[in-house]
Amino acid sequence: MSDIGWLSNSIAPLHEEDKRQAGARQSSLTKPAGALGRLEEITLDLAAMQGDVCPQMSEVFISVFAADHGVALNGVSAFPQAVTGEMIKNFSNGGAAINVLAREIGAHLEVINLGTINKLPSLEGVLDLQLGPGTKDICSEPAMSSDQLGKALMAGRDAASRAAQYDAHLFIGGEMGIGNTTSATALACAALNLPPADLAGPGTGLDAAGIAHKIDIVRQALQRHEPSLNDPLEFLRCLGGFEIAALVGAYITCAQSGLPVLVDGYISSIAALMATKVTSSSSNWFLYSHRSAEPGHKLVLEALHARPLLDLGMRLGEGSGAAVAVPLLRMACALHAQMATFNEAGISEKGA
Amino acid sequence: MSDIGWLSNSIAPLHEEDKRQAGARQSSLTKPAGALGRLEEITLDLAAMQGDVCPQMSEVFISVFAADHGVALNGVSAFPQAVTGEMIKNFSNGGAAINVLAREIGAHLEVINLGTINKLPSLEGVLDLQLGPGTKDICSEPAMSSDQLGKALMAGRDAASRAAQYDAHLFIGGEMGIGNTTSATALACAALNLPPADLAGPGTGLDAAGIAHKIDIVRQALQRHEPSLNDPLEFLRCLGGFEIAALVGAYITCAQSGLPVLVDGYISSIAALMATKVTSSSSNWFLYSHRSAEPGHKLVLEALHARPLLDLGMRLGEGSGAAVAVPLLRMACALHAQMATFNEAGISEKGA
Repeated sequence: MSDIGWLSNSIAPLHEEDKRQAGARQSSLTKPAGALGRLEEITLDLAAMQGDVCPQMSEVFISVFAADHGVALNGVSAFPQAVTGEMIKNFSNGGAAINVLAREIGAHLEVINLGTINKLPSLEGVLDLQLGPGTKDICSEPAMSSDQLGKALMAGRDAASRAAQYDAHLFIGGEMGIGNTTSATALACAALNLPPADLAGPGTGLDAAGIAHKIDIVRQALQRHEPSLNDPLEFLRCLGGFEIAALVGAYITCAQSGLPVLVDGYISSIAALMATKVTSSSSNWFLYSHRSAEPGHKLVLEALHARPLLDLGMRLGEGSGAAVAVPLLRMACALHAQMATFNEAGISEKGA
Repeated sequence: MSDIGWLSNSIAPLHEEDKRQAGARQSSLTKPAGALGRLEEITLDLAAMQGDVCPQMSEVFISVFAADHGVALNGVSAFPQAVTGEMIKNFSNGGAAINVLAREIGAHLEVINLGTINKLPSLEGVLDLQLGPGTKDICSEPAMSSDQLGKALMAGRDAASRAAQYDAHLFIGGEMGIGNTTSATALACAALNLPPADLAGPGTGLDAAGIAHKIDIVRQALQRHEPSLNDPLEFLRCLGGFEIAALVGAYITCAQSGLPVLVDGYISSIAALMATKVTSSSSNWFLYSHRSAEPGHKLVLEALHARPLLDLGMRLGEGSGAAVAVPLLRMACALHAQMATFNEAGISEKGA
């Protein structure tokens, strides 16, 4: 079995003094106090994370984890399971949404294949870490073995370590896997003790009958693994996906090594939730990019006390919503660093 | 008196066939239908405006109009009136928020001084079109003469023409002027037939007593000019500001010449509302960037049937909220143009 002892390594502390000094700088800039709204708040959060009064956001590192899900055989997705592998090829060829966005924002992008139903050949730009032909069907057996769980978490840890090595200012994790909203929904139900009907949604495009079926499948999975539902790592093993476990490992490693995380949408937020179940203070290192169109995202975000920056009705995954929010972080940092102060500009202050 | 006959020139038609073809392309891209949410909608809107199946967003032109307001003498702002001129110097020196944002997004930025209480010398990067020492106090007299209104509208028209000459893909108008939320609120009350208490807010930072006073001032202004409140151009003259009238002129000119407009926050949206009062189909050319923290913005956006892209609690003006939204438009255009189609990527379609 793979070693998972590193999961309990300590979480990096925030730099409260840098945040305080950043706040002082912010109130000296030539604008009414608070007039940049959330852009001001996010700058202070980044100052606390980076230990820098003027935080930076030039280097962004994106890892997209892909894997297949045995539960897809129950017909819980609008797309056939073959699409996971086909999309990995699309990532390799640069044609997917996250490829376009990574180019647009000048981010480093890597793709990690954790296991598709039909084994893929080696592909350019894709790290081959296949742990098996996807997970097992969670309705009838655990999604993965303890060894596979340990290796999936480690795949995430290694990605976060590569990001740190790259001197990234921000880590984004993305995911792709037909059937993975079903697995993620089961995890969120277990983590939040909520019924499947509160969280299950259309995913890539189910109709009402499809959602009803998905609710039933999640209920079956939760019943099957009922004895595990008090132990986060154990229900992550039973209900999760390779790519979701990798996100959990990546997020926890970022929090341990002091690298800010920008969380993407529904599935990524559930991975963030699982990370906080494993080690609660990891949440100090998570920023939230967007509110997904997937209706269950609302409850997950509430549980995380998350206030995402964007609400654009996106529901694509791949890290795409987080990538779209990166320019907001960059502009927030640029405003904070480059605006003149009242003193520098010789401007009368409020009520003067 | 300045000629304003151009206001009734025809509004450019939208290109519905390009929009239809853009929609066909969109549904062939390797993502679940609709999964990019508002980014998909905005791409189709831009396709219709630009007459291009793959709309472009590289060249962005920002004109910031600044002017003083006589109504500021009634103590309706948290800042002294001198700040308008001081901020124009700050624009010239590159230290204001819009300077930072324009650099960050690589936009062309120009600043137009339409008249400050103390005449400013010539400043680098600032077009000197001073129409007088700010407007008059709208509580007791019309804000401006017919000649000043015509010149302010024309200042906006000329800015929009420069943007078209620049081959801009998008026009952003910004504003700066101590007291201008009071003037804008009076205009919105007149345009929407709403009481001042429904629209007046803190602006740059009034407390509750300050807002109550502002409501009283707006009520006085509306009473003073009651006979003009059925004629948009006449109440624009009586209640407006030079910079607000310039925005109206710029927006209408963009709509006439087929240049998409990205509207900023509270004051800019009220200028857009005034433009639609003058010529209703100008609204076809307006996109909305963000929901301001100014509480009255909600009602103005509703009246415009506007669904802004961002809701970040910003309330700075200067065109800053619109500038912050530009990367979203760029990413939307890039995704649309660069993503692979299902066919190109050899990916199984939904339900296949």
